[in-house]
Amino acid sequence: MTKLRIGLGVDFHQLVTGRDFWLGGVLVPHSKGALGHSDADVLLHAICDAMLGAAALGDIGTHFPDTDNTYKDIDSKILLSRCSELIKAKGYSVVNVDATLCLQAPKIKPYVPQMQEVIAQRLGLTVEDVSIKATTTETLGFVGREEGVVAYANVLLEKQ
Amino acid sequence: MTKLRIGLGVDFHQLVTGRDFWLGGVLVPHSKGALGHSDADVLLHAICDAMLGAAALGDIGTHFPDTDNTYKDIDSKILLSRCSELIKAKGYSVVNVDATLCLQAPKIKPYVPQMQEVIAQRLGLTVEDVSIKATTTETLGFVGREEGVVAYANVLLEKQ
Amino acid sequence: MTKLRIGLGVDFHQLVTGRDFWLGGVLVPHSKGALGHSDADVLLHAICDAMLGAAALGDIGTHFPDTDNTYKDIDSKILLSRCSELIKAKGYSVVNVDATLCLQAPKIKPYVPQMQEVIAQRLGLTVEDVSIKATTTETLGFVGREEGVVAYANVLLEKQ
Repeated sequence: MTKLRIGLGVDFHQLVTGRDFWLGGVLVPHSKGALGHSDADVLLHAICDAMLGAAALGDIGTHFPDTDNTYKDIDSKILLSRCSELIKAKGYSVVNVDATLCLQAPKIKPYVPQMQEVIAQRLGLTVEDVSIKATTTETLGFVGREEGVVAYANVLLEKQ
Repeated sequence: MTKLRIGLGVDFHQLVTGRDFWLGGVLVPHSKGALGHSDADVLLHAICDAMLGAAALGDIGTHFPDTDNTYKDIDSKILLSRCSELIKAKGYSVVNVDATLCLQAPKIKPYVPQMQEVIAQRLGLTVEDVSIKATTTETLGFVGREEGVVAYANVLLEKQ
Repeated sequence: MTKLRIGLGVDFHQLVTGRDFWLGGVLVPHSKGALGHSDADVLLHAICDAMLGAAALGDIGTHFPDTDNTYKDIDSKILLSRCSELIKAKGYSVVNVDATLCLQAPKIKPYVPQMQEVIAQRLGLTVEDVSIKATTTETLGFVGREEGVVAYANVLLEKQ
């Protein structure tokens, strides 16, 4: 019997003016930012959900409800660390993370190494275990119209 | 050589008035329901497709064509059980399931434990091996306009 | 410690008249084709990205930038072979691939066996290790309006 488990996270946020744009734990300079109760870091939220899902621990809304003022404007890196603690408490550790950000602009490639470092550090991994990819939607849909951003994340967990 | 295999399912259905809303094998009270040839259970269809895909057994349309009256209004739990038999016949069993439902309304959290039980029972798993998560699209796109619903599911299979 | 790693690829292309429609390395007869710098094979690009992501080797845009004329109209099967070489150079091989194509038309089922053969051959796998599934979006969104096509791919890699 394998000790591995698979998890998948999907998250959506609107893009609006007047908000900071946090992605993968990094502040990305842009004319718009993601709207949300927390700092609205779509990439970290997808990774959190993938970790929680793989461990059958519910989802980000279960643990950090957006009706709770504790999580108002909270740095999603704190949520990522808590998800790491939650899965560890159940005996799991992360093998690797692979995430894809769908956004029309800006180009996030320059920020990817920093995102990898931030995430790897919070999860006790090396940057070789954290992959962040990005794609536009070729101007299609709400992502293409720069009204929103979507992130998909997969994680593989291993029971200790 | 590993005995594990990964599978990914994605499914879409329109939401319309005058239909029951089946999600994860559970009847969810709502003003709309999903349109389809079967009971249009988007979550079970995504899980079925992930199982079939991991075992390279085609997809749900291959096995249960929507041009076949046998499957008219069929309970998708029956399709899930058949997919379970199909992968078993090829020597596989499910390690874990992680699925995410994208819908704007209603809140499905109260129904998740029942969905987990239904799916776990059909797949010979415990509820700890079946994760169901939900997210809105923050009012974006056809999901946000409550015109449709999307489900993503990952499964990990192991060869016996 | 497991030798396995998970990867997820997501790709989008516009559909326009006057272009060939390459899907999974196969020319699919259709009134429209996918727009892109290369042959715009959305399915192969998603698979390439899943492979690169699992090995933390960046993404398809890193290795084959669409600003580079070398890749103008390039056959994406060549990119798939290069991704295969890239992961092998890092000690990985593909266990299995499961991909889902979201498009409204045409029906791709007749072409799936050929796609499986093409991909399996390029990755040194058997067709039993390559799953290609397809779904419409039930006429919803830009895929439903036949303005675009989306592909999702998961791969499982194993370190040799």
